[in-house]
Amino acid sequence: MNVNGVAYRSIWPIEQRAVGIIDQTRLPYEFCTRELADSRAVAAAIASMQVRGAPLIGVAAAYGVALAARQSSSETDLEQACQELLGSRPTAVNLRWAVQRMRARLSELPPDQRRAAAWREADAIAQEDLAINRAIGSHGSALLTQRHAQTGRPVNVLTHCNAGWIATVDFGTALASVYLAHDAGVPVHVWVDETRPRNQGLLTAWELAAHGVPHTLIADNAGGHLMQHGKVDLVMVGADRVSQRGDVCNKIGTYLKALAARESSVPFYVAVPSPTIDWQLRDALRETPIEERAGSELRMVNGLDASGRRASVEQAPPAVPVANPAFDVTPAHLVTGLITERGVVLPAQLATLFPDKSADRSADGGADGSADRDARR
Amino acid sequence: MNVNGVAYRSIWPIEQRAVGIIDQTRLPYEFCTRELADSRAVAAAIASMQVRGAPLIGVAAAYGVALAARQSSSETDLEQACQELLGSRPTAVNLRWAVQRMRARLSELPPDQRRAAAWREADAIAQEDLAINRAIGSHGSALLTQRHAQTGRPVNVLTHCNAGWIATVDFGTALASVYLAHDAGVPVHVWVDETRPRNQGLLTAWELAAHGVPHTLIADNAGGHLMQHGKVDLVMVGADRVSQRGDVCNKIGTYLKALAARESSVPFYVAVPSPTIDWQLRDALRETPIEERAGSELRMVNGLDASGRRASVEQAPPAVPVANPAFDVTPAHLVTGLITERGVVLPAQLATLFPDKSADRSADGGADGSADRDARR
Repeated sequence: MNVNGVAYRSIWPIEQRAVGIIDQTRLPYEFCTRELADSRAVAAAIASMQVRGAPLIGVAAAYGVALAARQSSSETDLEQACQELLGSRPTAVNLRWAVQRMRARLSELPPDQRRAAAWREADAIAQEDLAINRAIGSHGSALLTQRHAQTGRPVNVLTHCNAGWIATVDFGTALASVYLAHDAGVPVHVWVDETRPRNQGLLTAWELAAHGVPHTLIADNAGGHLMQHGKVDLVMVGADRVSQRGDVCNKIGTYLKALAARESSVPFYVAVPSPTIDWQLRDALRETPIEERAGSELRMVNGLDASGRRASVEQAPPAVPVANPAFDVTPAHLVTGLITERGVVLPAQLATLFPDKSADRSADGGADGSADRDARR
Repeated sequence: MNVNGVAYRSIWPIEQRAVGIIDQTRLPYEFCTRELADSRAVAAAIASMQVRGAPLIGVAAAYGVALAARQSSSETDLEQACQELLGSRPTAVNLRWAVQRMRARLSELPPDQRRAAAWREADAIAQEDLAINRAIGSHGSALLTQRHAQTGRPVNVLTHCNAGWIATVDFGTALASVYLAHDAGVPVHVWVDETRPRNQGLLTAWELAAHGVPHTLIADNAGGHLMQHGKVDLVMVGADRVSQRGDVCNKIGTYLKALAARESSVPFYVAVPSPTIDWQLRDALRETPIEERAGSELRMVNGLDASGRRASVEQAPPAVPVANPAFDVTPAHLVTGLITERGVVLPAQLATLFPDKSADRSADGGADGSADRDARR
């Protein structure tokens, strides 16, 4: 998408010697790009959330493996790099998916062919992300168009966190639908959850403003009230990990919005690129490891000071004990539909829509994946 | 309660010439008191949230009327001061209740007796607040004691906003139960919602730390996740306005916690001093005016800079549109019990518990208060 009139993607390879990223910890205050020259730098950028968003994390990790293959194509060195990348964020399944795909591709080749193959595979993963998001946007924008046709009013979408183009290679997942509907002339307005503690809502507001989509930033606390008063037509969020039965692990607070949506009969949609689906996972509430992040994310707040310079303030003194779980699980029964690249489905129909992929789970687990699941916990 | 070993209340009369307050906009960074010398200063302190919390706002407004009576006891001047005080915060019913009580008391007296009577009446309102909160704490702490007896573990209470001693004259409403249980040796731990956008959770954490009650600050988004995982024994919140049937208007976001509590079978209690009950209000969702506060509350975040000085940062640029509704309504069917000074009741039993007060509503409205309600909207 465009930034100051220049077309960007959120990640790009640089002559097979580095990978370029937008440093998302500086947004919305500064637009600043960085070059990552080795897999360790990629892992650090993922852990510090300079790159973030489940799809983008997967692509970044793939390029991380390619950078590792550039330095050494030995089995041991590659495996060490993969482990480091896998450890950078525990919850996003795309990370594991991308690293495993890279590992599988490279291990079948002789070492001298791995470097070139690694870049090809990472580029392919990035291209697939683009195609998936475009398809999701096409299916999801139909829902917005339909709603507008029903009401004749602008469609009010509530979103949580940032599932926009900078969370993917381009287009976004939840926001792909908004962008495509907006571009097709459907009037859309987005309620943007601030998304404490990392305030990814500011990234969403930045994206939407850059693309000219009407939007309003709200505290995470406000969504239930807006739904009670008929001010939300539908909720659209992304996902970090979706179980085979359609439980949705996403940014902490998503679950509360799903409860409010059900209570006010507001449809609750989740944009789900298939690499986000963990076919080995059934009951996400019981089985998903939830990342506990540093308390400093809650204590410190970034912004601009009175003279417009980037600054942070410590809003909670260090003596205050803080807990900071980063994700929660929205059980499948609260989800109206999953918007995948193959269409919109009820959670219960997910496996039917992906018979080719859902069958894979029996390859490394029992028939219900339980053996593998137990091993991973 | 104690601050640095010195016993404080949150508001105190100063020789019938001023009223002392703790400037709560400076907490938890600085403990700083101010003297308010006239009713206009009181109205400004309420509007800017230097004094806040429904019970304290009521008491502050009563002292505001007393300060007005000191300057002029004419009907016209007093009425003007009352109107100014009533306009300072639209949602808290205690404000209206206290001002109307002061107005009724003074209007029955000849002007030369009003000044002394006003101070007596304001002092009486403050003393009643103390007694009410102590009674609420006694009933609510029994719930905590009972839960501890059942589980043998520390009782985990989740609270939203600040319903502690600084939101009242002393003791607090929701936190009175916590303080009394803690003082009686019941192990209690409090999950403290940050409470965006004004971060009143920092005030709650400050209070609890000063009193030695174990607590953990969390993002508002985290409560549903904690309840899903059995980490919350009960929710206890305060209220800004409660309808005759037990709908609860409280800080924005309360409703989301009530939904999560029901979903995980966690009891959801609301501490309700009787002056918080609006007997003329039946369906709070349809009838309560919700205060829309300035977007700057969301844009600007206060804290300390790297050198420990108070500072603020602008986290959302001025170009970002912001909505900031300050309260939401939790329908009565989501409330397990209302903790009043007369005991803990189901919402439906509220009027039975207060036959003396609930009957008043017919005095200035129809039998169901509808005439008055319509007039007020």
